[in-house]
Amino acid sequence: MHVVVNAAMSADGKLSTREREQVAISGPDDFDRVDALRAESDAVMVGVGTVLADDPSLTVDDDARRERRRNAGKPENPARIVADSRIRTPTDARVLDDRAETYLLTSEAAPQDFVAEITESGAEVIAAGDQRVDLAAALAELESRGIDRLMVEGGGEIIFSLFEAELVDELSVFVGPTVIGGWKAPTLADGDGFVDDFPELSLRDVDGVDDGVLIRWDVC
Amino acid sequence: MHVVVNAAMSADGKLSTREREQVAISGPDDFDRVDALRAESDAVMVGVGTVLADDPSLTVDDDARRERRRNAGKPENPARIVADSRIRTPTDARVLDDRAETYLLTSEAAPQDFVAEITESGAEVIAAGDQRVDLAAALAELESRGIDRLMVEGGGEIIFSLFEAELVDELSVFVGPTVIGGWKAPTLADGDGFVDDFPELSLRDVDGVDDGVLIRWDVC
Repeated sequence: MHVVVNAAMSADGKLSTREREQVAISGPDDFDRVDALRAESDAVMVGVGTVLADDPSLTVDDDARRERRRNAGKPENPARIVADSRIRTPTDARVLDDRAETYLLTSEAAPQDFVAEITESGAEVIAAGDQRVDLAAALAELESRGIDRLMVEGGGEIIFSLFEAELVDELSVFVGPTVIGGWKAPTLADGDGFVDDFPELSLRDVDGVDDGVLIRWDVC
Repeated sequence: MHVVVNAAMSADGKLSTREREQVAISGPDDFDRVDALRAESDAVMVGVGTVLADDPSLTVDDDARRERRRNAGKPENPARIVADSRIRTPTDARVLDDRAETYLLTSEAAPQDFVAEITESGAEVIAAGDQRVDLAAALAELESRGIDRLMVEGGGEIIFSLFEAELVDELSVFVGPTVIGGWKAPTLADGDGFVDDFPELSLRDVDGVDDGVLIRWDVC
């Protein structure tokens, strides 16, 4: 499986404000790039924090891209994956609508009635790990179901966990022309953080886009 | 006064680990660029957190650059400035050695015996603001003493405060090829953070440097 983490952050590494309010970090050109990246992926993944804060649909916006996927014999939208250890995804979340297939990655600690509710909402629940999602096992399970190219859109908790589990192949960051600040504001990689054995990145390319900068790294 | 903020952060916006341990974010090329920037500045500023964590000397490393400063009739090192509301700078800190002039920007809340001690150590204390340093007033005071070009090297608290006070003219960020992670790790701009009226940046230039990226923005 090839895992691409893609996110837009402010010049100081924040994904949103301390109140988890989204900020217009990138513009239409970057939105379009992200939409193309979604259309090329077998699945798009977020952590449950992103579902709770932003309620994204994670579908492909551009009609022509969805049509190309259909013509290639694929579902018009990539699958949606939510990493959600205890199932906090609300049953009316947009990721649970019928526009795409949806998987919830959860742990054995998730209450069984929540599992039943989510399954009824049309999503498939994959349990791996005791208290937290065992990401390596869950991604292996997804791979066995044909998901080879996975795009991860955040937030900072799931991105850190994926780096910690050494599951990231590529990191694309749009660094936007603004400062959000705040020691409580979510950053590109939160969690406990590394104190040694930091992941090493190899620069693939960099481009100025409007007043921001798009950086693409391969993970060594 | 022209204020340039210059810092190296990881791909996820961190200045150091959650334990405030420095990480080799940039390499020799970027160190040399920073040394050149110091040599072009009238003064180099940090917050007291940086003094306590790293004990930097903030002097120009390259002999030829110091000689060029002397030949131009300047002190061989730019002045050093520590923003330190309550005077927590230890009297044996490297910024208080005799290699350069040093100013401590403090508030009226700083204990008078600490002011006396620091003054004895050879630094000049400038008090502005009741509980916290009034940065606009302090920088105006420094400007009246001939400091026209100020370089700020961090950390995240002072950088945020300067953006909040609308005192930053230019932001240079080296985005290094590593991930530090950690919601407690210091970022490029900490403090309370903005929730609206975010500073806007205008891209001046961007360059790949080794596997990192150097971004220079003007503040609009």
